[in-house]
Amino acid sequence: MHQLQAAGRAVRAMAEWAKQLAGIKGVMLDISGVLYDSGGEGGGVPIPGSIEAVEKIKASGLKLRFCTNETQATRGKFVAKLQRLGFNILVNEVTAPAPAACRILKERNLRPHLLVHDDLVPEFDQLDKANPNCVVIGDAADNFSYKNLNEAFRVLIGLENPILISLGRGRYYKETDGLKLDVGVYMKALEYACDVQAEVVGKPAKMFFQSALAEMEVEPQQAIMIGDDIVNDVGGAQQCGMRALQVRTGKYRSTCVSGLGYLSLSG
Amino acid sequence: MHQLQAAGRAVRAMAEWAKQLAGIKGVMLDISGVLYDSGGEGGGVPIPGSIEAVEKIKASGLKLRFCTNETQATRGKFVAKLQRLGFNILVNEVTAPAPAACRILKERNLRPHLLVHDDLVPEFDQLDKANPNCVVIGDAADNFSYKNLNEAFRVLIGLENPILISLGRGRYYKETDGLKLDVGVYMKALEYACDVQAEVVGKPAKMFFQSALAEMEVEPQQAIMIGDDIVNDVGGAQQCGMRALQVRTGKYRSTCVSGLGYLSLSG
Repeated sequence: MHQLQAAGRAVRAMAEWAKQLAGIKGVMLDISGVLYDSGGEGGGVPIPGSIEAVEKIKASGLKLRFCTNETQATRGKFVAKLQRLGFNILVNEVTAPAPAACRILKERNLRPHLLVHDDLVPEFDQLDKANPNCVVIGDAADNFSYKNLNEAFRVLIGLENPILISLGRGRYYKETDGLKLDVGVYMKALEYACDVQAEVVGKPAKMFFQSALAEMEVEPQQAIMIGDDIVNDVGGAQQCGMRALQVRTGKYRSTCVSGLGYLSLSG
Repeated sequence: MHQLQAAGRAVRAMAEWAKQLAGIKGVMLDISGVLYDSGGEGGGVPIPGSIEAVEKIKASGLKLRFCTNETQATRGKFVAKLQRLGFNILVNEVTAPAPAACRILKERNLRPHLLVHDDLVPEFDQLDKANPNCVVIGDAADNFSYKNLNEAFRVLIGLENPILISLGRGRYYKETDGLKLDVGVYMKALEYACDVQAEVVGKPAKMFFQSALAEMEVEPQQAIMIGDDIVNDVGGAQQCGMRALQVRTGKYRSTCVSGLGYLSLSG
């Protein structure tokens, strides 16, 4: 509990701190592992202090955007859960991979075979999925059975030009009962099986952060990303010329990084 | 059926051909995809001509060793199945990854967490598996559930020095009802999740071919490997200074290789 309380203090402090960072006009917040830990009966628990931190950022006049790689539910369902947990958050404040993937699929006339969580399927309702010519993979959790992965593999290996679109490249995340394998692990599995390279939609893809910046109407040097993932959050934001903070909640493990302070500021 | 008949002729021709190859004293035969296609009710079907090819090689006076990455059953159970299908094969003629892995585990005092097919578990009966300090992964097929892969991941990520031992690095193999993902795909998944490199036991590991050569008591330049996998069979054998033949049965796909004849001879 000590770590959580400390984290809560840290998140509260961030709201103040971000205001003081010269030239910062917009804040991007990761959700899982930063605002709450997912899993368990209610779908997750807020990290102490984070509900207040969101309120303070909003009250401070800073622009705020929630940037998540969450693909276990539609944005609507995900936001409703966060609202129930007490967060001041709206659907149109959230940037997430599935809607971005849908835009790409439509633009390129792609018909996806989906390997995603059941609750994400409605995001793809408007798309033709017959006779698929690509595979879209998300954080499917228990849907990552041998049978389902094999099915996706057979679709890919049967295509003359195999296209694999992955909603993120995360290794793992933290739920209330421990670490869980994320979509990136299964992306790597299919990449190896079919000798292809996936196209990643979501963090740390540059296009994902650029969309979020455009939605906030701020320049990269005016924005700061706050997350618990050194690659997806910190690395992705830096690549776009943004500043980034890593919090020590969520999946943070002391062996992952060295030489970082309690909060790491970079960029 | 045309392809199978042609393959049968090819396998029969090989027995004659191998005898004519100057200096060849020993033949290593892959099993799945070369002698039979696995899967279906009886556990598989012989590839036409392959039963006779084994007889002919044995009658020719050439030494013969069956070299398989099969890890869906103990050697005893696997050989019994092949005997039922009509093959002249004995347990002590087979080189397979699981017994090799057991030797390594004992030598290094490793206690494995097993992610393998149920039918392979008895191979590890003699080993201490309490409080595991490594993970051993085999072709677990339907046992590759999200839950089981996550469990193996948690064991690995919790170790100060994570050791992952993989019984092969194959991408996929062919069963009677189509292509199936092999152990290498899940090895890659765990490698990425934990940022480790697996130690591969089985083909194409040099040590695996060296054991088989020692068991046959022939020198590398006196031996030829016959298989359907360009990496595991052909590449692995060549690395040891052996010659190798690729047959066009099993997982062979025309897009995998180019410029090879009906049988490819290399080394």
